[in-house]
Amino acid sequence: MRATIMYGAGDVRVENVPDPTLVEPTDAILRVVRACICGSDLWPYNDMPKNERGQSMGHEAIGVVEAVGRDVRAVKRGQVVVMPFAISDGTCEFCREKLPTACVHVGFVGNRGLNGAQAQALRIPFADGTLYPLDVTENDARMPSLLTLSDVMGTGHHAAVVARVAPGKRVAVVGDGAVGLCGVIAAKRIGAEQIIILGHRPDRLALARELGATDAVTERGPEAVERVRQLTGGHGAHSVLECVGTGDATSTAVEIARPGGAVGRVGVPHYEATPGALPTFYKNVTVGGGPAPVRAYIDELLPDVLEGRINPGRVFDRTVSLDGVPDGYRAMNAREAIKVMVTPE
Amino acid sequence: MRATIMYGAGDVRVENVPDPTLVEPTDAILRVVRACICGSDLWPYNDMPKNERGQSMGHEAIGVVEAVGRDVRAVKRGQVVVMPFAISDGTCEFCREKLPTACVHVGFVGNRGLNGAQAQALRIPFADGTLYPLDVTENDARMPSLLTLSDVMGTGHHAAVVARVAPGKRVAVVGDGAVGLCGVIAAKRIGAEQIIILGHRPDRLALARELGATDAVTERGPEAVERVRQLTGGHGAHSVLECVGTGDATSTAVEIARPGGAVGRVGVPHYEATPGALPTFYKNVTVGGGPAPVRAYIDELLPDVLEGRINPGRVFDRTVSLDGVPDGYRAMNAREAIKVMVTPE
Repeated sequence: MRATIMYGAGDVRVENVPDPTLVEPTDAILRVVRACICGSDLWPYNDMPKNERGQSMGHEAIGVVEAVGRDVRAVKRGQVVVMPFAISDGTCEFCREKLPTACVHVGFVGNRGLNGAQAQALRIPFADGTLYPLDVTENDARMPSLLTLSDVMGTGHHAAVVARVAPGKRVAVVGDGAVGLCGVIAAKRIGAEQIIILGHRPDRLALARELGATDAVTERGPEAVERVRQLTGGHGAHSVLECVGTGDATSTAVEIARPGGAVGRVGVPHYEATPGALPTFYKNVTVGGGPAPVRAYIDELLPDVLEGRINPGRVFDRTVSLDGVPDGYRAMNAREAIKVMVTPE
Repeated sequence: MRATIMYGAGDVRVENVPDPTLVEPTDAILRVVRACICGSDLWPYNDMPKNERGQSMGHEAIGVVEAVGRDVRAVKRGQVVVMPFAISDGTCEFCREKLPTACVHVGFVGNRGLNGAQAQALRIPFADGTLYPLDVTENDARMPSLLTLSDVMGTGHHAAVVARVAPGKRVAVVGDGAVGLCGVIAAKRIGAEQIIILGHRPDRLALARELGATDAVTERGPEAVERVRQLTGGHGAHSVLECVGTGDATSTAVEIARPGGAVGRVGVPHYEATPGALPTFYKNVTVGGGPAPVRAYIDELLPDVLEGRINPGRVFDRTVSLDGVPDGYRAMNAREAIKVMVTPE
C-alpha cells in the first residue's frame, strides 16, 4: 500500500510500504477514507533532522474497518469509524475518567512504531477503546466535519473546556489556524457572548467571523493586548484559547486573560517554561490544557455535527489525493491552505 | 504609636510613627489585637535593598475598630474584626465574583502607602468591603485560629480549592511552612483520602501528621518525585498544593501531579516563567492560584474555626510583643519558629 513518510524538514514522500496486518487480538485494520494534514505536522516539516528510516505521518482519519482481531467486540468489518489521534484501551482509570490521552496504554498514531494515517490503511491497537463507530456511509456529505472529530474540532473544544467557556462569557482565541477556528466554533456552540480572534490573515479572520467570532484583533504583542483590553471593558477575557504553541502566543494569552480567568492551551508548547508566571499569579489566572481527549468528546460533539449545528469541516479549504500530500504540506506551510484533507483512494 | 518598619535585609525596627487618622469617609481605624509575621515577609528580610524611608511591615491582623468614617456602615466602633491582607471595596464586579484580591480598588496592607499591621493601629480604606466583623471578644481563646483567617488559613484553603481537592482524592502539599500546614488542614477538611506533605523539618512534619497528613516525603528533587509516585499507586497526586514559591518547588509540584490533575500555587513566584511547560501539557495538568481571596473564604471557614473543627492557630509556635518583632523575624528566618504571633499591647 501507499503511505506518507517524512525523511527530514521539507522532505515528504508517498511510498509503497507493506500492508498493515493484525498483530494483537485487540487490533483492527482500518482502510482510510479521509485523512488530513495537521498544523502540528508542520513542526517537523520545518525542523526535522534528516533521518534515513523516516517518520510515518498523519494522525487524523475516518476509515472503514477491514479486519479485526479475535478479541475486538465494539467494531466490526465494514464499519465506518472515527479514528482519534490517540490510541486508548477504553478501560483504564484514565479512560474511565474521560482522559483517554493519558491512557496507561496510550499511543499516538504515527509515533513510536505506530502507522501514520496519511496512508491507504493502518493498524489500530486497542480498537475497541480507540475507534468510534459511526452510523453513516463512507460517502456521507458530512464527512469533512466528521473527520474533524478525530482531532481538530475536539482540540478546539478542549481549549474551550479548559478555558471554562460558558454562556455569556468573553472569550479570546489566539491563533487563526484550523484549531483556532475550531476554538471559535466551540466557544460559540457553548454560548460565549463575545469571541475575539487574534490572527493576521484576512481570509481566515473572515471565516472566523462566519463561524462565530464577534471581533478580530490583528495587532501583535503589547498592541494586541491593549486592543483586547479595550474590547473587553478594560479587564480582558474570561477564557483564552491558546491555539498556537509558541512562547509569544502564550505570553499574549496570559496577558489578555481577565483576573480569575483561565487559559486553555492546545498548541504543543515550543517553550520549556510557561511565560508570565507573575501576571498569571497576581491575576489568579489558571493555565491548563494538553493533548485533547477527543475520543471522550465525540459523544457530545457528534449530534451537533450530524444535525448540522456546527460545520467544522469548513476548516478544510483544499483536498488532495495521497500523491498530492507533499504539495499539501507545502501549501499549508506557505499558509496557502488552512487545512488540507486527504482522500487516499 | 509604635509600628514595624524594615529598612533593608535583616534590618527590622519598631519605631514611633504618627497615629493613623481617617482620610476618606470609607476609612476605619483599627487597633491591632493580634498580628503576625508571614513567610512572605522573609523575602524582603533576605533581599531588600537598603532604603532610608523604610517599608511598613505586616498584613495579617485581628483588631478592634476604633473609629469609622461617615460612610462606613458594616462595622462600628468597638467591633472585633478580621482584617484580610487585601483591601477590597466589596462592591465591584470582582468582589461580587468572590475574587476580592482582584478588586478594582485593591490594595495590599503595608504596601504603596498603606500602613502595616505589625503595629498598634492602622488605617483601613474601604472598611465596609475589607473588614469582616466577628461576634467574639478580643480575649477569646480562639484568637490565634481566627487570626489565620486574615491570610494563612485562607491561603492554604485557596491552594486546595484551585488544586480541586475533593473527597477521596490523593493530595500532595509542597512545603512544610505555615501555609503548607494550613494546606494540610484545608485538604483534610474537604475530605482528601491521602495527604502527602513534602518537607524537611521533623517537628513540622510531625505537626503536619497531627493536622491530617497521612504521609511525609523528606527527599528532594527527583527522589521526592519518585517517592510520591510510589505512594500514589504510580500516577501522582490528583491535587498538588504549591506552598513555597521557588522554581524548584514548582518543578516538583508539576512533576508529582497525576495526569488530569491540578496544581494550586500560593507561594509568591520567585521565577519569571513557570517550570515544566511540557510535562504539564502532556499530562493535561492545570496550574492556577495566586493571592488568596481570603475575605471571600471567611464565610465558609469561620464556623469550623468557631466550633473547633479546625485549629489553624496551631501554626503559631511563638508569641512576641511589638518590641519582640525583630527577634521574631530572626527566629522565623532561622526556622526556629514556624510562625510568630504578635500581641502589640
